[in-house]
Amino acid sequence: MSVDGFVAGPQQDADTPLGVGGEHLHDWAFPLAAWREPHGLEDGEVNESTPVIEERLARIGATVMGRNMFGGGTGPWGDDPWNGWWGDNPPFHHPVFVLTHHARTPLMCEGGTTFTFVTDGIESALEQAKVAAAGKDVSPAGGAYAGRQYLHANLVDEMEIDLVPIFLGDGERLFENLGAGNPRLTHVATVAAPGVTHLKFERA
Amino acid sequence: MSVDGFVAGPQQDADTPLGVGGEHLHDWAFPLAAWREPHGLEDGEVNESTPVIEERLARIGATVMGRNMFGGGTGPWGDDPWNGWWGDNPPFHHPVFVLTHHARTPLMCEGGTTFTFVTDGIESALEQAKVAAAGKDVSPAGGAYAGRQYLHANLVDEMEIDLVPIFLGDGERLFENLGAGNPRLTHVATVAAPGVTHLKFERA
Repeated sequence: MSVDGFVAGPQQDADTPLGVGGEHLHDWAFPLAAWREPHGLEDGEVNESTPVIEERLARIGATVMGRNMFGGGTGPWGDDPWNGWWGDNPPFHHPVFVLTHHARTPLMCEGGTTFTFVTDGIESALEQAKVAAAGKDVSPAGGAYAGRQYLHANLVDEMEIDLVPIFLGDGERLFENLGAGNPRLTHVATVAAPGVTHLKFERA
Repeated sequence: MSVDGFVAGPQQDADTPLGVGGEHLHDWAFPLAAWREPHGLEDGEVNESTPVIEERLARIGATVMGRNMFGGGTGPWGDDPWNGWWGDNPPFHHPVFVLTHHARTPLMCEGGTTFTFVTDGIESALEQAKVAAAGKDVSPAGGAYAGRQYLHANLVDEMEIDLVPIFLGDGERLFENLGAGNPRLTHVATVAAPGVTHLKFERA
């Protein structure tokens, strides 16, 4: 999230899925070995973010994401459906549940990632993901709309915000219209790292 | 500022000038010796925030504030005008310029604080404050509306955000409607401290 509260810039489309300027939200992560390894890239840096990312990835057993994070404003699946942004070997390496209005058979990818398409709502996706995670954590990875739905429904036990010291000025907010005092999460840790501050919260 | 971007909570009024929950935005500061000393209080803690606050206070030669920060939604001054929230010995100890639509003679307080009431706009207030600061910094201290006007007008050379890891859920945002890519400020430093993360930016 940018300092001014945006998790994507304005004018999101297929060419700029994170909106204008939004790609800089991830500048801190790309050089890290801990980010590069699950993306099939070698080498990389080690810094204060490394243990934060390593611990996070180790704990996640399943991911839930909105349809935009899977592959843009994807409409009804055709005969040759779009397989999303993530390529043949997505970086998740675990079951992923995609919130959508359009049913589709699951998509099995290289490297252990499976995409399961869930049409009956966020609670169903969470329940399926909990089973698939087999005791590990379920991560509502994004985008903002999907994340906000889980916050609204008070289904979030922990939240980690990677706060990036840039201003986007406009775009999509994660924290919008949640109402006074929400989300009811309590701060438990702050880690300052190059290009990012990691803030961790738990259910109050 | 709260993690979700609010510099005051909802329902600001005379009894709750920072809105519901907004008082917790300053919880990190109250125990600090560096905060207590200019407020005429003894003792206090020393931690990672101390050099940040000491340096900031040492550099400020004049303050500009909105009328709400001076004393609520103050209307035309009567025969016995309200002297604001700040008591007989305000914690500024330097010239303060109050943005208002209602002219009034300056108010001299104990301890070196003077309030000058400026009715001809933010640029005039800034120019007067620059002269009064005699080479030191001018701080547009708040509230949100006054600060946002200076950001809009691109008159901010440096900004320090004290980011507090709480959620207010609703209230007044500092960063609202600034437009893509604004403010044009670049991150220069982060200091993680108990109950707050200090983020410093400079003109890009």
